[in-house]
Amino acid sequence: MEFGTIAAIATPMGEGGIGIVRVSGSESIPIVDKIFKGSSQLSTVDSHTIHYGHLIEPGTEEIQDEVMVSVMKGPRTFTREDVVEINCHGGIVSVNRTLQMVLEQGAQLAEPGEFTKRAFLNGRIDLSQAEAVIDLIRAKTDRAMSIALQQSEGKLSRLVQRLRQEILTLLAHVEVNIDYPEHDVESVTRAMLLEESEQIQKALETLLQTSRQGKILREGLSTVIIGRPNVGKSSLLNSLIQENKAIVTDIPGTTRDVIEEYVNIRGVPLKLVDTAGIRDTEDIVERIGVEKSRQLLREADLILLVLNYNEPLTSEDLALFEVAQGLNTIVIVNKIDLPQRLDLAKVEKQMLSAPLITLSVLEEQGIDQLEEAIAALFFKGQIMQEDQTYISNARHIALVKEAIQLIDEFRNSIEMGMPVDISAFDLKRTWEILGEIIGDTASDSLLDQIFSQFCLGK
Amino acid sequence: MEFGTIAAIATPMGEGGIGIVRVSGSESIPIVDKIFKGSSQLSTVDSHTIHYGHLIEPGTEEIQDEVMVSVMKGPRTFTREDVVEINCHGGIVSVNRTLQMVLEQGAQLAEPGEFTKRAFLNGRIDLSQAEAVIDLIRAKTDRAMSIALQQSEGKLSRLVQRLRQEILTLLAHVEVNIDYPEHDVESVTRAMLLEESEQIQKALETLLQTSRQGKILREGLSTVIIGRPNVGKSSLLNSLIQENKAIVTDIPGTTRDVIEEYVNIRGVPLKLVDTAGIRDTEDIVERIGVEKSRQLLREADLILLVLNYNEPLTSEDLALFEVAQGLNTIVIVNKIDLPQRLDLAKVEKQMLSAPLITLSVLEEQGIDQLEEAIAALFFKGQIMQEDQTYISNARHIALVKEAIQLIDEFRNSIEMGMPVDISAFDLKRTWEILGEIIGDTASDSLLDQIFSQFCLGK
Repeated sequence: MEFGTIAAIATPMGEGGIGIVRVSGSESIPIVDKIFKGSSQLSTVDSHTIHYGHLIEPGTEEIQDEVMVSVMKGPRTFTREDVVEINCHGGIVSVNRTLQMVLEQGAQLAEPGEFTKRAFLNGRIDLSQAEAVIDLIRAKTDRAMSIALQQSEGKLSRLVQRLRQEILTLLAHVEVNIDYPEHDVESVTRAMLLEESEQIQKALETLLQTSRQGKILREGLSTVIIGRPNVGKSSLLNSLIQENKAIVTDIPGTTRDVIEEYVNIRGVPLKLVDTAGIRDTEDIVERIGVEKSRQLLREADLILLVLNYNEPLTSEDLALFEVAQGLNTIVIVNKIDLPQRLDLAKVEKQMLSAPLITLSVLEEQGIDQLEEAIAALFFKGQIMQEDQTYISNARHIALVKEAIQLIDEFRNSIEMGMPVDISAFDLKRTWEILGEIIGDTASDSLLDQIFSQFCLGK
Repeated sequence: MEFGTIAAIATPMGEGGIGIVRVSGSESIPIVDKIFKGSSQLSTVDSHTIHYGHLIEPGTEEIQDEVMVSVMKGPRTFTREDVVEINCHGGIVSVNRTLQMVLEQGAQLAEPGEFTKRAFLNGRIDLSQAEAVIDLIRAKTDRAMSIALQQSEGKLSRLVQRLRQEILTLLAHVEVNIDYPEHDVESVTRAMLLEESEQIQKALETLLQTSRQGKILREGLSTVIIGRPNVGKSSLLNSLIQENKAIVTDIPGTTRDVIEEYVNIRGVPLKLVDTAGIRDTEDIVERIGVEKSRQLLREADLILLVLNYNEPLTSEDLALFEVAQGLNTIVIVNKIDLPQRLDLAKVEKQMLSAPLITLSVLEEQGIDQLEEAIAALFFKGQIMQEDQTYISNARHIALVKEAIQLIDEFRNSIEMGMPVDISAFDLKRTWEILGEIIGDTASDSLLDQIFSQFCLGK
């Protein structure tokens, strides 16, 4: 397919050694040639070569920047089109000016995700592989990155394609059955359809079972720390962050209030909600009001409820237990370096099934056990397997659920003795639904929605 | 010179399409070869070529990332050494993991600025060119970038080298004079030394005259907005920022309180000090205490003192005039869309020589005049000339001042009839001082100090 030539800044904004402006499309080499002065014309160079030179203002020949230009001719490129990457100095002005010069020569500003969208539209990758690209960039732990990488390399696509192929084979049997509707053939067909569709359903259910872990790895285990003032929430937070090298994703240009901090707890990305709030006021519940807190807590995957070993249980503590009722909670008793004034039996009565960890942030005791408890919650009886195919994306998960549901309906109607060609509609629909995962049957508006979540320059 | 092989992340941290890990040194190609799997061994490929492949864990062969690797063999590289750049997915985990793998194969983590330091130590660029590299990255406006670019291309170096050459020629004359101390030769020499040294001094003074503009372009015109609550400081700030596309340099990892915002006012980078404070409390003076404010104001290059057209002058206004006494101030009368209650004659009595701008932020009136007044303050009778050599770096400015002072002393002692060989010490010292600008006579500790200000990966 032939699209226009697009350009965007492909490196994160900020100060760094190198900034890259990426240009893709049939005009990318001629466009950059007009503003590049090096030892050779870019139109004459070999593919996949790098050229030192200067960006110059066409006409005045005035030097604008010192650059390295990479020329990669399609189809062996990210988009399958001709791609030119201009490596300039990594400052905000330098990178923006370079982009501006390329746009002035006729390139269009790329939309978020447009390079990846072209890789998809030009057939280099399918939709689930394209979606994995943004997961690769956003991955918060090595494990999350591995799953995204496997998806980008086509692991999920291959599984989906195999299942769709099996469905097609079943549909062919249905056709045969319709063409030759002798009685004995039909009963054989029905038995076969039930058996084969069960296999497909099982495969989808196995895939769905990975979705809880997959989703947490992709999005983080959203965690809220609650507790009365001075029980040590802030120091617990700092301790978790320091020991595990927090990843602060405070992206320039976004509102400063929305700060998310991730810590990597044994491969599980813990997404600490409202850490800025905890640090400022030491009391999330008080600060944002009880009703809003309750909602925040309900949306969390994990509550860390902190108590003070050195003080008796108060009515405020009890109120927090009530708030955490029915939620995924770990109770933490902090300050065990101080004399005991907390009645642990009373605490245990409140806790129901929540695990209890006693620790001292000050003396760095018990943090390991806390991390173990968090990891145990994540794995919950399942271990991660290297050869397992994971799904992590909410869109994929919804489609797989729908596919399982449709096969259920198909099997029910077969068992109820409905004509196979009628039942087969559900099977046909399953085939289509699975096609949406890999983008075989995706609408334009779906594509727009998916790629608009990308960052610029990818 | 032979150094170890170093590696660092060369792109800004954050989420982006591409992240780069840069490796430099004689082992860079073999090191990356151990973890790269593509269609060719990197040790066999041509220089300045790009290779698609995967990063693999040596031993397990497990795929860690999908990458493009650029191989550039010295001396035609940034450092003059063999350089390998690994372009991986631009996420935090991906880039860090790639760096980790390179370090595990024996590369050392590069210090800030170490790549540029090597370019200097390996003789590709001199010290003033190396210093321009960080100015290029930090440049806040096109003008600032142009000056940094010219310096990086050696414009300042060539001027300094020419002046040093002229000093050497003078010193040679002194030698001749010592060897053949006939009376008539000496008086000719003295006259010649006075004339020639005056030329050198004038050239240095012309250079020094550019330093005010150069420094502002490099560091920004540090600006504080003051005024009583509700005179419209915050909306003035927002208006300046919106019209001129603020550059917020909120770098992840730094304290969130230290936020600097730059707006580009007709090519002049206005550095708005404590904008976060203004936005939060609308009153900088009240918030940080009078004594601290006074100090902040004294350090500013420009004070914007805002008054309300709709209210009579208050004692608080008068106190602010007193605070701004003797400082570079523009008085702004806001809200001229409302009825006049401010006695402008009284205001003018307070102002002394400060320019007065009446405007309405609400109705977007008069902002242009304010920008003109700011630009006029910057240019102050001088216009920028394209062919002028600028200095902007505080270190260079101090050295030029010292050189001018030394030539003064040299000329005085010649005029006082001191023996030329004694006077010549000052001239010799001038030659050395100017050498420090280009790093000809720079100490290790000076180098460490300069390069430690760089960002990682450059």
